[in-house]
This record gives sequence, C-alpha cells and structure tokens, in this order.
Amino acid sequence: MSKESVGITVSKKDDFSEWYTQVVLKAELADYAPVKGLIVLRPDGYAIWESIRSSLDEKLKKTGHRNGFLPVLIPESLLGKEKDHFAGFNPEVFWVTHSGDSEIGDRLALRPTSETLAYSLYSKWVKSWRDLPLKINFWNTALRAEIKATKPFLRTSEFLWQEGHTVHATKEEAEKEVLEILEIYKKTVQDELAIPVITGKKSDREKFVGAVYTTTMESIMPDGKALQMGTSHFLGQNFSKPFDVKFLDRNNVETFAWQTSWGVSWRLIGATIMVHGDDKGLVLPPRIAPVQAVIIPIYYSDRDSQRVLTKAVEVERTLQNIGVRVHVDSRNELTPGFKYNEWELRGVPLRIEIGPKDLDRQKVTIARRHTRQKSDLPLDQIESQIGTILQQIQDEMFAAAKKRLDEKTVKESDYSALKTALESGCFVEAPWCGRAVCEEKIKEDTMADIRVIPFGAENPNEGCIYCKEKSTTKVIFGRAY
Amino acid sequence: MSKESVGITVSKKDDFSEWYTQVVLKAELADYAPVKGLIVLRPDGYAIWESIRSSLDEKLKKTGHRNGFLPVLIPESLLGKEKDHFAGFNPEVFWVTHSGDSEIGDRLALRPTSETLAYSLYSKWVKSWRDLPLKINFWNTALRAEIKATKPFLRTSEFLWQEGHTVHATKEEAEKEVLEILEIYKKTVQDELAIPVITGKKSDREKFVGAVYTTTMESIMPDGKALQMGTSHFLGQNFSKPFDVKFLDRNNVETFAWQTSWGVSWRLIGATIMVHGDDKGLVLPPRIAPVQAVIIPIYYSDRDSQRVLTKAVEVERTLQNIGVRVHVDSRNELTPGFKYNEWELRGVPLRIEIGPKDLDRQKVTIARRHTRQKSDLPLDQIESQIGTILQQIQDEMFAAAKKRLDEKTVKESDYSALKTALESGCFVEAPWCGRAVCEEKIKEDTMADIRVIPFGAENPNEGCIYCKEKSTTKVIFGRAY
Repeated sequence: MSKESVGITVSKKDDFSEWYTQVVLKAELADYAPVKGLIVLRPDGYAIWESIRSSLDEKLKKTGHRNGFLPVLIPESLLGKEKDHFAGFNPEVFWVTHSGDSEIGDRLALRPTSETLAYSLYSKWVKSWRDLPLKINFWNTALRAEIKATKPFLRTSEFLWQEGHTVHATKEEAEKEVLEILEIYKKTVQDELAIPVITGKKSDREKFVGAVYTTTMESIMPDGKALQMGTSHFLGQNFSKPFDVKFLDRNNVETFAWQTSWGVSWRLIGATIMVHGDDKGLVLPPRIAPVQAVIIPIYYSDRDSQRVLTKAVEVERTLQNIGVRVHVDSRNELTPGFKYNEWELRGVPLRIEIGPKDLDRQKVTIARRHTRQKSDLPLDQIESQIGTILQQIQDEMFAAAKKRLDEKTVKESDYSALKTALESGCFVEAPWCGRAVCEEKIKEDTMADIRVIPFGAENPNEGCIYCKEKSTTKVIFGRAY
Repeated sequence: MSKESVGITVSKKDDFSEWYTQVVLKAELADYAPVKGLIVLRPDGYAIWESIRSSLDEKLKKTGHRNGFLPVLIPESLLGKEKDHFAGFNPEVFWVTHSGDSEIGDRLALRPTSETLAYSLYSKWVKSWRDLPLKINFWNTALRAEIKATKPFLRTSEFLWQEGHTVHATKEEAEKEVLEILEIYKKTVQDELAIPVITGKKSDREKFVGAVYTTTMESIMPDGKALQMGTSHFLGQNFSKPFDVKFLDRNNVETFAWQTSWGVSWRLIGATIMVHGDDKGLVLPPRIAPVQAVIIPIYYSDRDSQRVLTKAVEVERTLQNIGVRVHVDSRNELTPGFKYNEWELRGVPLRIEIGPKDLDRQKVTIARRHTRQKSDLPLDQIESQIGTILQQIQDEMFAAAKKRLDEKTVKESDYSALKTALESGCFVEAPWCGRAVCEEKIKEDTMADIRVIPFGAENPNEGCIYCKEKSTTKVIFGRAY
C-alpha cells in the first residue's frame, strides 16, 4: 500500500456514502472493473467471502444439501417459460447475441437467477419419490444490469452469491425447508458477521417474482436504511407445473413437486462494513477476518530489533499453533504508527505490540480494534488468552450491533409518528390491515416499504396505521437502498 | 436413479467415445444444458471438482498465493489491447450487445481468459517493489464458443477452471514461479487423480497466445489421444508493456514487471474418467471420490435385517470417525446385486458387504472397485485397516496408469516408424531440429503435433526425425483431442 492512499478522509456520520466507498477501496477489499457497475474482489475481500462460504457450506452439507454447477447462459425461450418471473427480470438481463462473428438464433441471457435452468434439468432428474428430496446448492454469480447508481457489494451488475434449489414430495416438507434455510442464514449472519437480523415474511408486493411467498432476514444500517440480508422462497408448484417437475409417488400416482429457492450474496460483506466500520476504517468480526491478529515489532536500535523480532516470530508460531490467523508486520522502512493506522484501516480485530520495554516486563500490549482500547497481556498468557479475547470481541461486536438495531426499531400506531420515525432513520413496527392499497399509499407518502412481517406478529386488535381498519398483523416499515 | 438408466451398454475398448459419454451421464457426474456445448454438474461431479479445488487451493495458499474475483464481462477495447492474444481468442468469444432493451456501446466479451482484465487492474495496484510479488488466483469459469463437437469436461463452451496471474520484480523470479506452479499441478494430478504426466515446454507453435513460452503437463488417454492436463505460462513483459504494469524498484527506477499465468480446468475430471474407468463404469481414486466406501447390508428376513442394519450403521460411524467418506445403502426395495451394479457404475472405490453369515463369523466382505477383487476383513480390523486399504487402492491405480503411460510412450528415430507408432495410439519421443517447418510437415502427414518438449531432453547428436538435420532436442509427438 502506498502512503498517499492510507486513511479515510470523511467521517462515517457526516458522509456515510463516501465513507463506505473509501473503506471498500482503501481497505483493499474491492476495486472497480473497467465496465460500469462491475467490481473485482481483491484478496482481503475474497477471503471474507471464502469465510462466509465455508461456514454456510458446512451447515448446508450437514443438512443434506449438495453443490452443483450451472452454466451462465440461459436460452431466452427457457427464461420466458414462467411469465411473471421473466417479466420481473427482463429489464435487467444481459443478452448474448453473437459468438465470434456468427449471430445466435435464440438469444442467450446471462443468468439473473437459475430457477428456469435448474428446473428444466430437475424435470429430467426427478422421476420417482425415491429421487426426493433433491437439495442442490450452486455457488456462482448472478448478472442483473443495474441502471441505478451502483455501490460495491450492495448494488452491482454481477454479484457473487449462492442459490439453493430444492424439490420435495409434499408442501409441508418444502415449507419446512424454507424455514430451515432461513434459520441457517440467520445463524450464519449473527454468529459469523455479528449482525443481528429480524426474520419473517415479505408482503405479496415485495415477494420474489414467481414465489408463493418469500421469507426474509432484514437489518438496518447506520444511515437508517433497511438492508435485505437474504431470502428463502416457497415456490409451491408455480415452477413445477410449467417446467414439468413431477414424480411417481409411493402409490404410483404422478404428482407435481413442491419447490423452494433461496440465496444470500456478497451484500453480506457490504453489511459488515457498514454495521461495524468506524472513522478509522474497516472493523472485522474475528470469525471472518482474513488476519485476526497482527503483531507489530517495535524497536529503535539494531540491538533491540534482534530480540524483538525473535519474540514476534515466537508469538506468531504460538498463535498459529492454536489456529489464530496471525501476521507479523516486519517491514523495516515503516514506523509503528504508520503500521497501526494501516492495520486499523484494514479492520484487523487485534493488534499485538511488542517492544523492548514490553520484553523487559515479560508482557505485550494488545489493542482491540472495535473499542480501540489498549491493555497489557503477560507473555505467558498469550497462548491461553488470545482465543478467549477474540471470542469476546466477536460477542461484544454483536451485542453492540444488537443494541443499535433495538434502539432503531420503534413501535408506532399513529401515522404521523410513523413518518417522523422513518425520517429519523428507524425501522417502524406498526399494525397493517394486509391490503396492498395501504402499503402503496404509505410507500408514496414516506418512500418506506414493508421490509418484513415478523414471525408471530399477528395482532388483530389494533387499527391499520394507514386506514385505521382492523389490522391483521404487525409489520416493519423501513426505507431501503 | 431409475432402473432403466443403469449400466453401460458399450465396452471401453470397442467404442471409447460412446463409453465415455455414457459414464459421464449414467454415473450422474454431468448432464447437458439446454444450450449446445454447455453442461451442468450434478452433485457427484461437482464434489470431485471440490476435492481437486481444495487440494490445489491448499498448495497455492501455502506458497503465498491468494484468491480474488473477476467479473465475467470484459470490454472489447480492453480485450484487444494485446493483439496476438486477442486474435487467438476472437473466433471463440461470446459477445454481449444488449442489456434489457438497450444496446451497449463498447461490446462486452464473456471472459475467454482474464489476462487483459487482471492486468488493467494490476497496473493500478502495483506501484512499488513493496507491492511485489503479487500472486492472485481466480476460481471461475472461462467461456469459449466451441465450434467442433463438444464433449463433457473435455470440450465445452463454458468450463470451470482456475487462472493464476502473478507479477514479479525480476525475470528469474517469474520463471521460478512458472516451474513451481507446474510442479504443484503435477503433484496434485499424480497424488490426487492417480494420473501420471510428462512435464516440459510447448513448442512456439503450440504455446499460449501472448506468452514468451508455455510449460505443460501432458498425458495419454486409453484411446491413444494426447491430453493437455494443465499449463503454466511465462509471459515475460509481453503484457506488462501494453498494460503498463510497472513499479519503482529499490533504486527508485521505473521498471516493467515480469508476469506469469497458469490454469487447470475440469478437464482433469475428464482425464480421470478416461484413465481409470472400465466397462462397469466409473472408477474413482479414493482421494477424490465423493463416497470412498459404501456399505451394503444384506438380509433376506426381518430377523436378520435388524442385526445387519445395526452393524452397518456401527461400521459407518467407526469409519466416519477416522475420516472416511462412507455411505450405508439401506434402501429396502432394491436387491444387493442391483446396489452393487449401481455403486460400481458410480465408481465408489470400496464396497463393504455385511450379511448374517458375515456377522456369525465376525467379519465383512470387501470388494475393491479397481480390481473387482473380493476379500474378507475381520470386523475388529475395520478401524485399523480401511485407511490403509484406501491408500493401497490409490497407489495401485497410479502404478497401473503409469505402466500404461510408459508402455504407450515409444522412442523412434525413423519417420515411418513414428507414423506407425502414432497410428497405434502412442506417444512418440523423437529428435527434432527445432524448426516450425518440420513440425508443420509432420502435423500435415500424421495429424500429430509436438505435445511437449520434456525437461532435460536436449539431445544434439541425432538427426531430426523429419529433415535429418542436426536435432536440438527430443520431443514427444501425439495426436490430440
């Protein structure tokens, strides 16, 4: 990293959008590709994705899911087979019309999502009840041409994600799958990224095009905007009928199958940056940090440098042996202060400083990134304590984010209070009659939509926040990106 | 799997091409996508790729490489920046011309390979000698429209691969990287896939478009055709100059960097199928088999079924605990014989049969897939022996493949003998003068090209097999797919 690029020049509070972009670029997570709306991931950014992927993949495999591969090209004729679904993606589709100098007859879409492609295959693979359930996940990218301003990880024309596509013999089993996946997502996001979420259903207006219903996990960002963190869809038989995904049941009766699809994307990285970052840059939860602890050797004479560096490497080995991802920054030409700034910018959760005076006292100085607090740790406690400290940091980061989410989630039953709360950047829990017309009026008035109908939020005893008629449920309103 | 699809209907010897396709489809590794020339991977096929990826990824990370992500779209203007390179890929490029209903100004290519995209970014990231070496690998797909007949894993218009792209301060360091990668590839292929390879350089005619030289690992398939298994290119400064990848060295002098690129693809799966498979189907080396051992409980009465199934699950747990990927086939409605055939077709290296008579004698019957030999194993030796047996299978499969490669590699110094040997499906080692004109004449006459100039094959004392003039090296001729 060259000197001039170091340091975030705006505060998170004053210019959130510029702050975000600077963190992404200067912490070297991502960079812009030559095509507008596309980004590349640099090694630190991709390492975070690898962490998320590995944690989620393990949970999916334990629950009987397996991975597959689908090509990026889908014929137009196939994509259009489920009409609502196609209409939803049509304006965003990239079209391949030529290979070499030849024109292609049936234009090819770059996959905006793979329901249509996967299910045209599933109709061949599923013949009998013995072939069910079929639970396949695909780690790939989706391509959706973004017209609005793009933002790394949050809105890009190609994004890394996983898309799961399952087939079941019964409605009940499929609906159970939808919830099991949402629970796996929630656990991953809360435990690994230290971001609290609210789970529930989407309203009909906000559901996935082609789904019977969509379940979602939502969170709120520091600028008061809502972020959808992942969705799990119950597709019913909406795709199995047009795509002929059917099977002979145990009584030899031909039956259309029940399906689900679900996905999370690298948007989770964007959420992590926004929720935890500060004016010094990125702050990474230890579980997903590419480097969990950086060791900075401090010396001002050649005599000191020897024993300090020797100890630094010794501590590195100790930590490697207990599975900590650790790095010694032994660059000679840079000052300790410069290094502190750089590793703070890059979000490393724990800094370990080792200087000659520390060695005289048989201790090191540790600095926690999330609070920027410094403390001493005796050398002989490094092996036993660092793992615990990293877990504490993880827990404290989650607790702090949970506190902020709770503070920013307010209950209102009065319409003008709802408007004021939205204006101040809150999630607002309010009663709703269930009618799309009220939902749309509220959207027109406030730019907020129903982010989620939390599980267990039935509440028939209050009037709808808009029309005052009997409400069917409580819902959470928020403004999205 | 439905009954009618079980079983390969041609022999490997009589109709190799049809045999191969049947194994791919019936062992459920892959299937055809709706677009001609594209395939999808089913879970067993993808699990093999995951195994290869994980083994290679570990070796790359240990040698200081990190992963990144590049988008699939490359602007035409950028792709054309290195002229030879572009000319090489031009006829194979898929072009995106529209997003939604809008036409795109600068057409977008679907990545045939990422040198141009990566290096346009590297020119921003590399400023100083401190930024070097830069060693990034990308696990993605490449897209090259295939005009010739396609074949799963061997020739498809989109394929899974990895592409590594490194930048170095000196020529020497870059050339060392080229060889280090080739060695990592060789180790992966020989140790994991049990396929022996010959490593060396490509001739100028056969090198990667844009490289100074290409190193390669080659093998020969049972039908006598050569297969390129992976390549590692020394790019010199051929890309750093047009893409402006330069750095300030320790003396503050601006210098163009030295680069390498290298890749292996899912073609390795195709090679594994061809090298090890037999008339019963797939034969997988244990290291990459999704299931390494399948347990078949055998019983003909309800009384037996209880104790047999109990023991089967007990053996499964024992094996899981020592890290063996194991599956109990407890499907009730299928006969043991049917199950044997199915798991043989799918290539599972080891079958463990447990019946009531086995239990009476406190043993199981094990059947090795690669030799189809059966033997007894005392129950109390399962824990200590199965790991060893799987390693033996791995070693025996490599040794058998090595023996076949050696037998099929013949040395000739007479041109008509070379033709006869090629006709019989051999690799032919022969002296060559180093001139492209001889290489081209031989290709015209025999359809064979120079597959590899093996390392250390300098041999100036013989005449060129074609022109009889002084040879500079020995090379290996073969016919490719």
